Amino acid sequence: MSVIDGLVEEFARLPGIGRKTALRLTYHLLERPRDEMRRLARALDDVVARVRACSVCGNLTESDPCDLCESNRRDPTLLCVVEDASDIAAIERTGAFRGRYHVLGGRLSPLEGIGPDELRIASLLARVRNGGIVREVIVATNPSVEGEATALYLQRLIRPLGAQVTRLARGMPVGGDLEYTDGVTIAEALAGRREIG
Amino acid sequence: MSVIDGLVEEFARLPGIGRKTALRLTYHLLERPRDEMRRLARALDDVVARVRACSVCGNLTESDPCDLCESNRRDPTLLCVVEDASDIAAIERTGAFRGRYHVLGGRLSPLEGIGPDELRIASLLARVRNGGIVREVIVATNPSVEGEATALYLQRLIRPLGAQVTRLARGMPVGGDLEYTDGVTIAEALAGRREIG
Repeated sequence: MSVIDGLVEEFARLPGIGRKTALRLTYHLLERPRDEMRRLARALDDVVARVRACSVCGNLTESDPCDLCESNRRDPTLLCVVEDASDIAAIERTGAFRGRYHVLGGRLSPLEGIGPDELRIASLLARVRNGGIVREVIVATNPSVEGEATALYLQRLIRPLGAQVTRLARGMPVGGDLEYTDGVTIAEALAGRREIG
Repeated sequence: MSVIDGLVEEFARLPGIGRKTALRLTYHLLERPRDEMRRLARALDDVVARVRACSVCGNLTESDPCDLCESNRRDPTLLCVVEDASDIAAIERTGAFRGRYHVLGGRLSPLEGIGPDELRIASLLARVRNGGIVREVIVATNPSVEGEATALYLQRLIRPLGAQVTRLARGMPVGGDLEYTDGVTIAEALAGRREIG
């Protein structure tokens, strides 16, 4: 296999990138100054060399503990539990949350053989237990069947520790359209309706 | 800037990859074993280190001259002129051409300041002149205004050297639909109509 085919193959492994796109990316880079390819290779190497999981929350970071855990401007009484580190970035972009995080590293999935021991649940419970500082755990797992099951499982473990357990609201996405929204979401939006004003 | 942001930025430079896709690719790789990131970095480095332009035809290759130029199973009397090396791959995939290639490295474009001196035209003429082996030059530049102008320009230079100059046929793409085909293409397909059987 030529090194060009090798690069096409590596690109094609990425999610959402098929063979045609992989070819297009490869030939694009081949037509540019070699420096662009080198820069992408260096960016990948830098991440491999320097990014670690935060030993406290599981966030991806270059320093351990991560900036979010180290910051004294984050509310230590609020803990937001997410499936993946990428979810932290999504929530941080909103600027609407000023507490701390805990990354599970996935969700319970009996079908895929992912049980409580495969997730960072023990360290979550230890954080909630520790000194009784955490008042509320916001379980922000994805609104899927497995995400919901994981939330329920965590709620049963955490409530006895004295912390409140909450879930993100369900309802119509902003900018959504009733006509194209699935029935389960509409039903949840109806059940969770709020008075105006 | 964090090394993660650096990687997102490098991905986002690639054509057809916006900020959201770049984020998705980065977090996908971060969630996979580090080896996958290393493999992509190595694939890029290998291409940088080993891929060159063939000194004869301009094709991208690890050996110089390239396999297509070295092969004695390719017809040396037929020369197919393309804009970019990626066009060679597209034609080779069809298996319908058994001659040799010449890469121009673009097309004439006064607006972008690309004149004859910016393209590999001198070496093309030298190949056609050399020994009178080349009988036909198939100009396979893209069917755009600039591709057509380039083809016409080459035809004027090559015809006097004694070689025939041809152009890829224009017409309906296979699997195309009259209703959605632009008028110029339909007009060309009408003008180039052929008797059945």
